[in-house]
Amino acid sequence: MANSSAFWESELFRTFAFYVSVLLFKVLSNNFTTVYYRSIRKCYRVEEDSKLVKAKHQAVEHPDVTRVVRIHEHDLENIIPFILIGSLFILTGPSLTLATWYFRIFTGARLVHTISYLFALQPARTIAHVVAVVILNLMVVSNIKYFM
Amino acid sequence: MANSSAFWESELFRTFAFYVSVLLFKVLSNNFTTVYYRSIRKCYRVEEDSKLVKAKHQAVEHPDVTRVVRIHEHDLENIIPFILIGSLFILTGPSLTLATWYFRIFTGARLVHTISYLFALQPARTIAHVVAVVILNLMVVSNIKYFM
Amino acid sequence: MANSSAFWESELFRTFAFYVSVLLFKVLSNNFTTVYYRSIRKCYRVEEDSKLVKAKHQAVEHPDVTRVVRIHEHDLENIIPFILIGSLFILTGPSLTLATWYFRIFTGARLVHTISYLFALQPARTIAHVVAVVILNLMVVSNIKYFM
Repeated sequence: MANSSAFWESELFRTFAFYVSVLLFKVLSNNFTTVYYRSIRKCYRVEEDSKLVKAKHQAVEHPDVTRVVRIHEHDLENIIPFILIGSLFILTGPSLTLATWYFRIFTGARLVHTISYLFALQPARTIAHVVAVVILNLMVVSNIKYFM
Repeated sequence: MANSSAFWESELFRTFAFYVSVLLFKVLSNNFTTVYYRSIRKCYRVEEDSKLVKAKHQAVEHPDVTRVVRIHEHDLENIIPFILIGSLFILTGPSLTLATWYFRIFTGARLVHTISYLFALQPARTIAHVVAVVILNLMVVSNIKYFM
Repeated sequence: MANSSAFWESELFRTFAFYVSVLLFKVLSNNFTTVYYRSIRKCYRVEEDSKLVKAKHQAVEHPDVTRVVRIHEHDLENIIPFILIGSLFILTGPSLTLATWYFRIFTGARLVHTISYLFALQPARTIAHVVAVVILNLMVVSNIKYFM
């Protein structure tokens, strides 16, 4: 491993940091989607929220709201592990080209996953999920071998 | 960026690490709140748990338990992204003063969020959530610009 | 703290990175368990998934599926904080022996937790959970003291 002060400025680290930032921005954007669907469906989690906007409280969640909440959960379940696995993966000395393709494919797969979940497109959603999980497994297995 | 061996000892890194540790301690404390509410409401997730404490199993979760479980989930949804976004943000060379205020306001907002969720205080909870999300977005946009 | 280019290659960092990788691999493996239980129980989250495999859509989730989904959630709730808390803990200059035992016990406790959740074994599950949470609290308190 090269000297680590140079490492922060390396192309590999900066590429990883860029994709991580884009993915985290995507995670944050789920907050807005959820607020949007909750307000058009007038469907809030707890009674005090319905009261705040003077809506009748609905005991059962609208399917559209459930859908966006699940997209948020699913993102957290996959993107957070990607960031943690990736942080170690870039320390295992991968080639810049391979690593960049892993990050790109994962990011693309997550965007396809969200769109296909939102519009109920199958098998696109399952394929996107499998692609993302394969990338995660490839990286984590490299990590285990390297740090063993 | 300065030499990174100095970086771990820099005021900026130590300030970040301190707020991160406080927030993670707060996340962990949710375990105790949940155990507390589950025991006073005698409301457990799975049958074997009810059997363990010799309570009748309740199929429907008590609203107080749902509330504390959601506080935990909500913390994870916001605090984990804060830590990951912040880790990159401190590498973008922000001023110590700005960064410290971001960390302080975010931490304060999350504490207000928990208290106002627990006691059903609105609009305090929504304001706290929005403040925290704004800080996260400010940091992530800085990151994307810097690493692009 | 020693020079950080040496730090990535230190025994402490490599030990931590190894346990983190094993735990993340375990988190990923939940994806397979969930797919497996969803297919043997023919119980899918959304209608388009049931349609994809030509199964009748079930409105209520099968308890086995709920169980594996909760194991995944529970892993994320505990393993992600472990990684973040541990990343700072290894910077506080702990002894290699103490740190290694913390990582080992935590990893063991999480494996016992999963097995005992899957087969409804109590009080094994509660004991495993408590052990893992104690380790997390010991580390986070060290962190707060060190970075204060």
